[in-house]
Amino acid sequence: MTTSLPLVDLVIEARWVVPVEPAGAVLDQHAVVVDGGRIVAIVPRAEVDARYRARNRKCLPQHVLLPGLVNLHTHAAMSLLRGLADDLPLMRWLQDHVWPAEARHVSAQFVHDGTRLACAEMLRGGITCFNDMYFFPAAAAEAALASGIRAAIGLITVDFPSNYAADADDYLAKGLAVRDRFLGQPLLSFCLAPHAPYTVADRSFAQVLTLAEQIEVPLHLHLHETQQEIEDSLQRFAVRPIERLRRLGLLGPTLIAVHAVHLETQEIELLAAHGCSVAHCPSSNLKLASGIAPIARLAARGVNLGLGTDGAASNNRLDLFQEMRLAALLAKERDGRADAVAAHQVLRMATLGGACALGLDGEIGSIVVGKSADLCAVSFDDVALAPCYDPVSHLAYAVGREHVSDVWVAGRQRVENGRLSEGDESGLIGMALLWQNKIRP
Amino acid sequence: MTTSLPLVDLVIEARWVVPVEPAGAVLDQHAVVVDGGRIVAIVPRAEVDARYRARNRKCLPQHVLLPGLVNLHTHAAMSLLRGLADDLPLMRWLQDHVWPAEARHVSAQFVHDGTRLACAEMLRGGITCFNDMYFFPAAAAEAALASGIRAAIGLITVDFPSNYAADADDYLAKGLAVRDRFLGQPLLSFCLAPHAPYTVADRSFAQVLTLAEQIEVPLHLHLHETQQEIEDSLQRFAVRPIERLRRLGLLGPTLIAVHAVHLETQEIELLAAHGCSVAHCPSSNLKLASGIAPIARLAARGVNLGLGTDGAASNNRLDLFQEMRLAALLAKERDGRADAVAAHQVLRMATLGGACALGLDGEIGSIVVGKSADLCAVSFDDVALAPCYDPVSHLAYAVGREHVSDVWVAGRQRVENGRLSEGDESGLIGMALLWQNKIRP
Repeated sequence: MTTSLPLVDLVIEARWVVPVEPAGAVLDQHAVVVDGGRIVAIVPRAEVDARYRARNRKCLPQHVLLPGLVNLHTHAAMSLLRGLADDLPLMRWLQDHVWPAEARHVSAQFVHDGTRLACAEMLRGGITCFNDMYFFPAAAAEAALASGIRAAIGLITVDFPSNYAADADDYLAKGLAVRDRFLGQPLLSFCLAPHAPYTVADRSFAQVLTLAEQIEVPLHLHLHETQQEIEDSLQRFAVRPIERLRRLGLLGPTLIAVHAVHLETQEIELLAAHGCSVAHCPSSNLKLASGIAPIARLAARGVNLGLGTDGAASNNRLDLFQEMRLAALLAKERDGRADAVAAHQVLRMATLGGACALGLDGEIGSIVVGKSADLCAVSFDDVALAPCYDPVSHLAYAVGREHVSDVWVAGRQRVENGRLSEGDESGLIGMALLWQNKIRP
Repeated sequence: MTTSLPLVDLVIEARWVVPVEPAGAVLDQHAVVVDGGRIVAIVPRAEVDARYRARNRKCLPQHVLLPGLVNLHTHAAMSLLRGLADDLPLMRWLQDHVWPAEARHVSAQFVHDGTRLACAEMLRGGITCFNDMYFFPAAAAEAALASGIRAAIGLITVDFPSNYAADADDYLAKGLAVRDRFLGQPLLSFCLAPHAPYTVADRSFAQVLTLAEQIEVPLHLHLHETQQEIEDSLQRFAVRPIERLRRLGLLGPTLIAVHAVHLETQEIELLAAHGCSVAHCPSSNLKLASGIAPIARLAARGVNLGLGTDGAASNNRLDLFQEMRLAALLAKERDGRADAVAAHQVLRMATLGGACALGLDGEIGSIVVGKSADLCAVSFDDVALAPCYDPVSHLAYAVGREHVSDVWVAGRQRVENGRLSEGDESGLIGMALLWQNKIRP
């Protein structure tokens, strides 16, 4: 009898499955069935043995199984600059520390090594997909592939020369070559990444827009991060950056506006009307004293929201559990309402919201039959998580990334019992130390 | 030759010792020598063997050794209500959830069990001393003693009846009896804890003041937590709460003002002039939408600052690493300056600042010869902490409480390799589940 049951790659049985869709749902004692890297069923634990034979089985008796987290904005390679300089005014931090270190050290090797380190940290913390923006994107793509993590590789453009490219045309040409080289890699997608309104000229934005329409990828850029950026735009262009982008035709459902801290009411309406996404980066916005984005108001207007860690130089963690908690807490303070932005809303931001922004919501972001098996298990077997009246509340307010026990990307296990399944963590730490000694001898 | 060297209980060798005094100091490759529960020397690792023979030796080759953290405000027993209700307006949260649960369930057993659970969580997270305020303080004292953690037990007074006491006189009489019973316990100290200006009448405050002068203990109370509290005080007393306390004679160096979110300039001056301490509880203040305390301005005026987690019902973590990070980040945002409140300042708040507030700075709060060996080791052997340009920056911005490897209280090891040395963590989780089933069947 049982031999006629379908044979599948993996059955994951969990105390709770939190699928993210529908919002707030908690499936008690359920199993997620995985085959060929995809979710093929979600069934009560009591029924799974009667319906499937499993090549592998994972039992998570005190765990929540949730979709892998999506880090909607980072500069992964900057993990090598983590804590290089803190507690400094923004311009001194950039001009005296970050930019000189980048000018001296950033290379394809730096980006590869820094991204490997970042991927290890992110996977360990339940992040299965990240949206990157940095120089030498091919090196980032290689590091992501080697790490087994999903990545949206930003094809960066800025109107100043760097170790990576000479001018806007050079950045775009190199970006396109990166996309051509890695096209077809199932774990990789791409964004065009014009850095920010203050570093990209109108002509370059026009090129980016043409290209984005041709190759059908999202646009990933910093927007309205600081008051200074807005004042500079008013001086140079006589309009605020969002209005400038509107005139250039860049507002649309493929736009991922990172930060969006300083928004007037009609700018929230503009982002909503154009179907833009916002990548909210609360730790970085606090650390650089940029401000607190009005996410409760954005959410109320239907703007799609994701969460980002930003780079490790301004965070200094690549930790979406931290960003979930902070997003929910800051929204309450900003709006003066303890009921602003609930736990399930920040969980959606950290998963499906990010996936939607990247155009990947057909593939990842929730536990739904047919989607890729990008999954994260969180162990609740800890005095710090007892009692548990509501697993979703715990995910937002009590869990730390250290509670992540197991992670799968496209059905392949990448973290097991809190450690990388394959990666050499000691080797990565050693490599980081070599860079540290070079960067600050 | 070597036999003539002094024999000591314990030598802890660490990659770095961060003594907190002097501010920002990082001692490279040092050892802390412990005997009779006290710190007897701090010496370079290279010299320790030539100077001491050790009964026990702990080698921490990739660790920071710092003073045990001091949680300056909590309601430990409320860990049993962790996550019972979130994302609700303050008054609905209190009136529909917290207060009814307390009225139905709070007993000496509840306080004992909840405090045991909280002590386990706190010790695991590097907290070696907590300042508690809750009903049935004798049960909290017993739980602290059983857990081997240092505690300042709040002798609570409120002007309403509870399961614990009938009226203000009853609260004070019971509080005094608790102090008499546990006086002489080396790990216990006491605070008088009149709950808040809106729950304590002038007459009761006067009694508390008389008593505090007789028994020489600090005063621990909630103060200027919400705008509503201030408005109510203006209505009832025609003055803001701090001014009311000033008139009652309660402002002074023994006062621990918890929260202090809403302060006018002259109120900051008043707190400074009277030598009051402030217990800053950033997570709780955000979660209940109370606001952000002006700690950079308080620090600039010389007000002593400590950090508190508040209770697990409004946090939902008892995690001072989280509060350190948040305190530093929020101060930058509140003041619009990325250089407001540096890493070493929040580390001081979480250690020596708390100790000073409790009048225990002669005993704990920094790694200084003669003080009690209340110590916390943090492992930096993690991809999430590499590279490391500045260990103090990492302690504030990158470390999580999961990096705490070893904890000593008065020289006795309470956490070893991230687990309680003696406590039964599974038993505590099981006990919390029993309470959970009672509280929400």
